[in-house]
Amino acid sequence: MDGRSGMTASKIRFDVLTLFPEMFHGFLHSSIIKKAHEKGLVETSLINFRDFSTDKHRTVDDTPYGGGGGMVLKPEPLFRAVDHLLNGVDTRPPVLLMSPQGQPFTQRKAEELARHSHLIIICGHYEGYDERIRRHLATDEISIGDYVLTGGELPAMVIIDSVARLIPGVLGNETSAASDSFSTGLLEYPHYTRPAEFRGYRVPDVLLSGHHQRIETWRRQQALRRTWERRPDLLKTAPLTEEDRAYLRELESRAARDE
Amino acid sequence: MDGRSGMTASKIRFDVLTLFPEMFHGFLHSSIIKKAHEKGLVETSLINFRDFSTDKHRTVDDTPYGGGGGMVLKPEPLFRAVDHLLNGVDTRPPVLLMSPQGQPFTQRKAEELARHSHLIIICGHYEGYDERIRRHLATDEISIGDYVLTGGELPAMVIIDSVARLIPGVLGNETSAASDSFSTGLLEYPHYTRPAEFRGYRVPDVLLSGHHQRIETWRRQQALRRTWERRPDLLKTAPLTEEDRAYLRELESRAARDE
Repeated sequence: MDGRSGMTASKIRFDVLTLFPEMFHGFLHSSIIKKAHEKGLVETSLINFRDFSTDKHRTVDDTPYGGGGGMVLKPEPLFRAVDHLLNGVDTRPPVLLMSPQGQPFTQRKAEELARHSHLIIICGHYEGYDERIRRHLATDEISIGDYVLTGGELPAMVIIDSVARLIPGVLGNETSAASDSFSTGLLEYPHYTRPAEFRGYRVPDVLLSGHHQRIETWRRQQALRRTWERRPDLLKTAPLTEEDRAYLRELESRAARDE
Repeated sequence: MDGRSGMTASKIRFDVLTLFPEMFHGFLHSSIIKKAHEKGLVETSLINFRDFSTDKHRTVDDTPYGGGGGMVLKPEPLFRAVDHLLNGVDTRPPVLLMSPQGQPFTQRKAEELARHSHLIIICGHYEGYDERIRRHLATDEISIGDYVLTGGELPAMVIIDSVARLIPGVLGNETSAASDSFSTGLLEYPHYTRPAEFRGYRVPDVLLSGHHQRIETWRRQQALRRTWERRPDLLKTAPLTEEDRAYLRELESRAARDE
C-alpha cells in the first residue's frame, strides 16, 4: 500500500506507454505540471512501447482475427513493457487502459488514483487493443467521456493533470480555492471582478453591498439554480440543507407557474 | 452558414485563446493533427489573450467582488481578443468556453461543431471567468467531463482532436474504421490479433473458424453484453433489432437465475 488507505500520496510517478511520446511535451513542460516536476512531487516517464516489440520491423499492431477493418494492438509489446516497469517494484501499481469502452472518469476516481504513488497508463492510438491486454494486463479501463479521439494520449494527460493537482503542494494556495467545482457536489456560483460595469453589463448589486450574509445566500442560491438548470443529475447526490431544498422547491413551483 | 446545414465542413479553423499557448505544441505537432495542418484541412491559431489586456502590467485577472478565494478572469482582455478575431469575419463563429460548469461534451456535439468552418475556443486556467464572459461573449459552455483540471487547455485539445478527425480527409482509410465506438450506440466488441495463444490466453475459437455469419453474431452479442454490463445507459438510445432485444432478455434472465 502507498501510505494509509484513504490518504493522498505525498508524491506520484506516472509511467505512460505510448507510441507518440512527443505529444506530451507541451503539456509536461508547462505550468503546474512543470512546477510539480521541479518540486519533485510528480515524476513522469514516457515509454514508447514500440521499443518492446519482438520483431525486426518493430511491429506493434496486426489485423484482427475474424476479419473487419482497422488494426489491433498486439499483446506482446505492451505486456513486455509493463513487465519491464514492474521489475524490482514491490507493489503492483494500477495499470490504466485509456479506452472509450472504459468506466467514465470522475473526480471521485481521480481522488482514488491520487492515493497511489505509482500509476501505469497505457495509450492506444486509433486502434483497438487485443482483448488479452484489457483482461489480463489492465486493472482499470478508463474513458474520459463519450466522444471519439484519435488516441489515448489526451486522456492520459487529463488523468495526470487531475490526479497530480490533488497531491499536496502541487497547487499553490493562490490557485487551490477556485477549483473545487465538484467538491460541493454543485456547479459553481457566478464570479465577477472589476470593472463594476463593462459594455453596459453590471455586476449584481448584492456583490457590491459588502453584506457578507446576503452574499453567501445569493451565491448558494445561484449555485443551486445553475445546477438545477444545467445538471439536475448532480442534485441527486449533492449534500443539501433544508434551506437548499426549500429554495429548489421554490424554483420548481416558479417554473410550473410559468408554463 | 458553412455549407449546407447538416454537412461537415471541408476544412476548419480553430482560434484558441489561452494564457499557455506552449501547452499545445506537442499536440499540434504530432500525428494526425500535424498531418491535417500539412494537408490544409485544419488551421489552428494560438492567441495569448494577455496581449489584449488594457494596462501596462498586462493584467488578465482580479479578485472577486463579494470576497472569497481565487482569482477571476477579467472581461476586457477576452472581449477584446474575440473582437480582434471577428474583425472582417462575415459569419460569427461559435465561441466555446471551456468550463467544468458547461454542457457535457459528447460525440453528437463534436459532429455539430464539425459543421462549422471556424471555431473560437476560450481556455481559462485555474480561475473562474467573470460571468459577463459566460453570458455575453460565449455561445457555448462546454465541459469534457465531471473532473477538475488545472485549465481549459486539455479540454480545448480534446475538442480540436474530436472535431478535426471528422473533417473528410483528416483520417486515412486505414484508421477510420476502427474508431466508431459510438456510431453503433454500443461499446465495441472484443478485438484479437496474433498470436492465437499468448501466455496461455487463447483467442476464442469462433474467430479462428472462418465462419463469417457466426463471427458476426458473436461480435454483436459481445458488444451488447459489454454495453449491458458496463454502460446500460447507452442501451436506452442504441438502435436495436428484435434479435438484439431477445439476447438482452436472455442476459437478464441468466443474471436473475444466478442471484
